[in-house]
Amino acid sequence: MADKTREEPNRLERRKARTRAALVTAAQSFIAAGKLNAPILEITQAADVGMGSFYNHFQSREELFQAAIEEALDRHGAALDLLCENLDDPAQVFAQSFRLTGRLHRRNPTLSKVLLSNGLALIRSDRGLAPRASRDIEAATRAGRFQVQDVELAMTIVAGAAICLGQLLHDQADRDDAAATDQVTEDLLRMLGLPADEAHEICQRPLPPLDALPQHDTAA
Amino acid sequence: MADKTREEPNRLERRKARTRAALVTAAQSFIAAGKLNAPILEITQAADVGMGSFYNHFQSREELFQAAIEEALDRHGAALDLLCENLDDPAQVFAQSFRLTGRLHRRNPTLSKVLLSNGLALIRSDRGLAPRASRDIEAATRAGRFQVQDVELAMTIVAGAAICLGQLLHDQADRDDAAATDQVTEDLLRMLGLPADEAHEICQRPLPPLDALPQHDTAA
Repeated sequence: MADKTREEPNRLERRKARTRAALVTAAQSFIAAGKLNAPILEITQAADVGMGSFYNHFQSREELFQAAIEEALDRHGAALDLLCENLDDPAQVFAQSFRLTGRLHRRNPTLSKVLLSNGLALIRSDRGLAPRASRDIEAATRAGRFQVQDVELAMTIVAGAAICLGQLLHDQADRDDAAATDQVTEDLLRMLGLPADEAHEICQRPLPPLDALPQHDTAA
Repeated sequence: MADKTREEPNRLERRKARTRAALVTAAQSFIAAGKLNAPILEITQAADVGMGSFYNHFQSREELFQAAIEEALDRHGAALDLLCENLDDPAQVFAQSFRLTGRLHRRNPTLSKVLLSNGLALIRSDRGLAPRASRDIEAATRAGRFQVQDVELAMTIVAGAAICLGQLLHDQADRDDAAATDQVTEDLLRMLGLPADEAHEICQRPLPPLDALPQHDTAA
C-alpha cells in the first residue's frame, strides 16, 4: 500500500476532479434548460459517470445544483478579475465589468442562463459580479467618482439591470447586445453620479479581447 | 325555463364569480408561498370549493396560476391608476407609481410575492406597473422631462430595480421601506435625466393615502 499511495493519489485525484467537473457541467446544462426536476440518473447519464460516482461527490441533486451555480459564478468572477486587472479607476472597473457581463449572455448562453436562473438570490451572493460591483461602487464613491448615498440600494438597481438585460438579450435575438449593454452601463454610471459626457465616454472605450471570458466547453 | 332565466342568472353568475375569486385568491397564496406544485385538490380545499367547480373555471393548475398572476397585476395596475389620476406631469406619475409600488411589498406581502415570483416575465407584461412605467417614460421623454435614448433599455433598469427592491425589502425586515423606495426612485429619476435636485424633490412629495392600495383580503 505504501508504494501505491506514493504514485496513485495524483491520478485518482485527477480522475475524481474530472468526474466532479463532468457532473457540474452537466448540471449547468440542466439548470440552463430549466430542468430543475431532472432525476439524478438522467444527470449522471448526461455526464457519462456512474450513479455511485455521484454520491462520492454530492449528497443530493440540490447540492450538485448549488455547486454548479457557484462554479459558474466563480468562473465569471475570475474572468472579470483577469480582464480588469490593469485598471486603476474603480468607476472604469465597474463599467468594464458590467459591459463584459452584458456580452456574456450571447457568447455563453449556458453560463448566462445558469446565472439568470438564480437571479434574485445571486444579487447578494459573495461570488460573481455582485460582490465586485459592490466593491467598485464603494471604492468609486470613496474616491469621489460616484455620488452614492447607500451602496446596497445602488446595487439593487445595478443587479436588477444586469439580470433584466440578460433576459432581454435572450428574448430579443435581433438586438445588438454590445450596443444595448453599453447604453445600460452608461445609464447606470449617470445614476451613480458620473456626468453624462463622462458616462458616455467610458462606455465607448475599447474592451480587452473577450477570449478570456469563460466558455462553457472549457468548464470541465 | 323562461321564468327561471329571468331570475336566476344573476344569482348563478354571482356564485360563479365568487367561486372563481376564491380559487384565484387561494392560488395567489400558493404562489406567494412558492408552492407551485401543489395538487389541484389542495388548492380547491384551501378555496373551500369542490373539484368539479374548479373545472368549470379552469382546465389546469397552470391556467389558474396564470389567472391569479394576471388578477394581481390588474389589481395593482388599477390601484396605480386610481392613485395617480390627478397628476399631469408624466415624470411625477412615474415617480409616484414607483414609490407606491415599493410600499406595496410589506403592506401586501402576498400580492408582492405573486408579482415577484414571476419577475422576469412580468417586465414585458401588458399589465401592472411595467406598461404604465413604459408609458410614463415615453411621455416624459416626449415632454422633454426625461432624456432617454431607448425606452425599452431604460425599462430594463426600472423593472430590474423594482423587482430587486421588492426582494430586498422582504429579505431585510429592519430596512425602512419608504426611505429605501424613495432613494431608489430618486436614483432612477436621475438615471432618466432629471436634475439631481429635482429628482430629490419629487421623491419627497406627499403621497396619496395608501388605503387604495390593494389588500389581499379584498381580492375576492
